[in-house]
Amino acid sequence: MYDRSTQVDRSADSINFGIGQPDFALLPHALMRRVAAERFAEGDTELLNYGFPQGDGRFRWALADFLSRGYCGPVPPQQLMITAGASQALNLLCTLLTRPGDTVFVEEPSYFLALRIFQEDHRLNAVPVPTDEHGLEPAAVKEALTRHNPTFLYTIPTYQNPTGRTLPHSRRQELLALAEKHDFLIVADEVYHLLDFGTPPPAPFAFAADSGRALSLGSFSKILAPGLRLGWVQTSAQRARQFAASGLVDSGGGLNQFTSNLVRVALEGGGQRDYLDGLRREYRQRVQAMDAALHKHIGDRATWTLPRGGFFFWLTCAESLDTTALLAAAASANVGFLPGPRCSSVNGLSHCLRLCFAHYAIPEIEEGIRRLGQVFDSIQ
Amino acid sequence: MYDRSTQVDRSADSINFGIGQPDFALLPHALMRRVAAERFAEGDTELLNYGFPQGDGRFRWALADFLSRGYCGPVPPQQLMITAGASQALNLLCTLLTRPGDTVFVEEPSYFLALRIFQEDHRLNAVPVPTDEHGLEPAAVKEALTRHNPTFLYTIPTYQNPTGRTLPHSRRQELLALAEKHDFLIVADEVYHLLDFGTPPPAPFAFAADSGRALSLGSFSKILAPGLRLGWVQTSAQRARQFAASGLVDSGGGLNQFTSNLVRVALEGGGQRDYLDGLRREYRQRVQAMDAALHKHIGDRATWTLPRGGFFFWLTCAESLDTTALLAAAASANVGFLPGPRCSSVNGLSHCLRLCFAHYAIPEIEEGIRRLGQVFDSIQ
Repeated sequence: MYDRSTQVDRSADSINFGIGQPDFALLPHALMRRVAAERFAEGDTELLNYGFPQGDGRFRWALADFLSRGYCGPVPPQQLMITAGASQALNLLCTLLTRPGDTVFVEEPSYFLALRIFQEDHRLNAVPVPTDEHGLEPAAVKEALTRHNPTFLYTIPTYQNPTGRTLPHSRRQELLALAEKHDFLIVADEVYHLLDFGTPPPAPFAFAADSGRALSLGSFSKILAPGLRLGWVQTSAQRARQFAASGLVDSGGGLNQFTSNLVRVALEGGGQRDYLDGLRREYRQRVQAMDAALHKHIGDRATWTLPRGGFFFWLTCAESLDTTALLAAAASANVGFLPGPRCSSVNGLSHCLRLCFAHYAIPEIEEGIRRLGQVFDSIQ
Repeated sequence: MYDRSTQVDRSADSINFGIGQPDFALLPHALMRRVAAERFAEGDTELLNYGFPQGDGRFRWALADFLSRGYCGPVPPQQLMITAGASQALNLLCTLLTRPGDTVFVEEPSYFLALRIFQEDHRLNAVPVPTDEHGLEPAAVKEALTRHNPTFLYTIPTYQNPTGRTLPHSRRQELLALAEKHDFLIVADEVYHLLDFGTPPPAPFAFAADSGRALSLGSFSKILAPGLRLGWVQTSAQRARQFAASGLVDSGGGLNQFTSNLVRVALEGGGQRDYLDGLRREYRQRVQAMDAALHKHIGDRATWTLPRGGFFFWLTCAESLDTTALLAAAASANVGFLPGPRCSSVNGLSHCLRLCFAHYAIPEIEEGIRRLGQVFDSIQ
C-alpha cells in the first residue's frame, strides 16, 4: 500500500489522497507498547528464537479465535500459515505455485503493487477481467476461460482496492464453481474484510479454504499496524503444511516469530478487538465526511458509490478526462490522488481515480476535497 | 537453521548436536526488552507504519556504522537493503535474478536449507563445486565453468555451514576475478562473519559489493536473535535501489520496519556490540570444550579442524561409515547430529557429519560427545 511516488511531504500543506496508508496518529502506539512489555514480562525467550515454520502455535490459536468471531464462522488454526504480510504471502504463492509465463487472472482495476509482483517480480501473464459495480463479473471470467488457463484468479472481494466495492455472495459461489470446474485456484486478498463500518460483508473466501481451492490472505496492516509485517494465509491444513515445509519458510523458522508473539498478547487480551472497533468508528465518520465533501465540491462531475468498509473511494469521471494529466494540476493545488491507470494491468481507466479516506482527519479531508473541486473547476 | 527433523525434545535428556540454533538461555531477553521499551518511549509511531522500501534510514546508518567496525572497513548505508533474514534474502534474489532451470553453483557441502530454496522452491539447477579444507577450490570452479553458465555462485565463505571452514583471501580474489571474467554473481552468505572467536577472518565479500558483482547476505539471527527475522543484503547502491523498487518490497514498505526500529536502539546504544562480545567469549569456550571432548571420545576415528568462529564442527569419518545409519544408533543413545548427505546437493558425503557447539552449555557438550563416542564404540 506504500508507494513513494504518491507520497508527499505532509508538512508542506499537501493533502494526498493517493496515500493508501493508515493515519499516523491512529497507529496503536500505546497498545503495542503495552503488549510488548507484557510479552517480555512472560520471561521466556521463545519470542526471540526460531519458531515453527507454520507459525507460533499459541498465536495461531489466538488468531483463529479472533477470526472466527470476526468472520462469524469457524476458522481452524490448522488452516492458518503465518506470513510477513499479505504482499509477502502473494510473493510466496507466486514462488511456490507458478512459473514465469504462467497466466493469472486479475481484476480490472486491481491493487497496483500486486500487479507489479505478478508482472515484474514473477513475470506472470496477468490477464485483466472486467468488473462492474458489484466487482468481478462471473460471465467475464467464464469468457476469459475460453481463451486462458489460469493458475489462479487474484481477487480483492471485499471493499476492493481501488474501487471499495464488494462482491455479492452469489458471485462468490459462482467463482468457486468456475474454479472447481476449470481447475484453477482463487487467491482472495481479504485484508479489508474486517474493516466494515456497519453491516458485515458476505462470508469470506476463507470459508472455502478447507478444500484448498480458495486461499485467503489476511494481514494486520489494515487492522493494527503495517510496520509489523504480519499476516496469514488461510488454506487447507494440508496445503498450509506444504507451504510451511518449503525451504524458504523452514529456513527462517517461520516468517515472523517475534512480532507474532507480541500481537498474540493483543489478541488474547482483547486489545486488538477494541482497537479495531475504534478504527471502524473513526473510519465511518471519515467516509461520511468525504462523501459529503465530494457531493458538495465534485457533484455530478464524477460518480461513486459509498464504501461500506475499507480505505477507498473510486471516482469515475467523464470519459474524456485524463486523470494522470489532472494529477499535475492537482499537485499545484496541493492535493493528490491515485490515477486510474496506476490500478490497471493494461494502463486503462484513465478517467477514473482512487481517493483514500483513511489517512487524514476530517478537517483535512474536507479541505482536500475542496481543493480537488477547484482543480475540477479549473479544467472546465 | 531451524529444522524440525533434527529437533528433539530436550526434556527427554536428548542432546542433539544437529540443532543449528543458538542456546535458548543465551538469547538477549533483557537487551531486547530494554530496547523495545526505549524505542516506544521515543513516542513517535514511525516504527508501526510502512517504512521505506530499502529499509529505515536511521537503522541503515546505525547498521552501516556497526558493520564498518565489525568488518574493519567502510560500509556505506546506501549499499544496504534491509531484509527479513538471510533466508528471505536468498528467496528475494532467486525471485528477482533467476528463472526456473537456471544454473547456480553451490559448495559441496553447503547449507541444507539454502539447497532446498534453490532446488525445490525455485527449481534451479544447483551444481555442486567441491571444497577442500580451505573452502571452495577456484580450480574446481574454473573447471565447472567449462560446462556451465551460472547466474550466481552461492558461497558461505567464513566459518562455513556445515564445515566451519574459512576461505582465504587469495581464493576470494580468484573467485571475484572468475565472476568478472565469466559474468556471474557471487552471493556470499556472510552470516557467521562477525562470529569469530579471536582473530578476525579475511575481508568479507561485502567489500566487493560496490561493483554489484558480489552480494553479501547478513543477519541478526546468529549475532542477536533468530526470531527477529532481520537481515540485510549489501550490494551496489544501484542494485539495492533496484531490489527496493520491486513490487514485493515496495508493497510492504520495507521488509521489517518494526523490528529494525527496535534493533536500531541496540546498535546505537552499544547493546548489540556488548552482546556479541559476550557470545564470542561463550562460544570460544564451547568450541574448545567440544574439541577436547572429541579428542577424548572420538580420537582418530574422525578428523576435523578446530573452527575459528561460527557454529559448527565437521567430522570426516572412515569412508566406509554411513552417518545416516549411525544416526539411528545415536538416537538410541540420546545423542544427535546432522548426517553429511543432508548438506549435500547430490546426497553425497555419507561419511561426514555436522556438530553444532552453539546450542548447548559445556556440561551437555561433554556428555553428548561422550555418548557419541559410545556410539562409535558400538559399531566397531
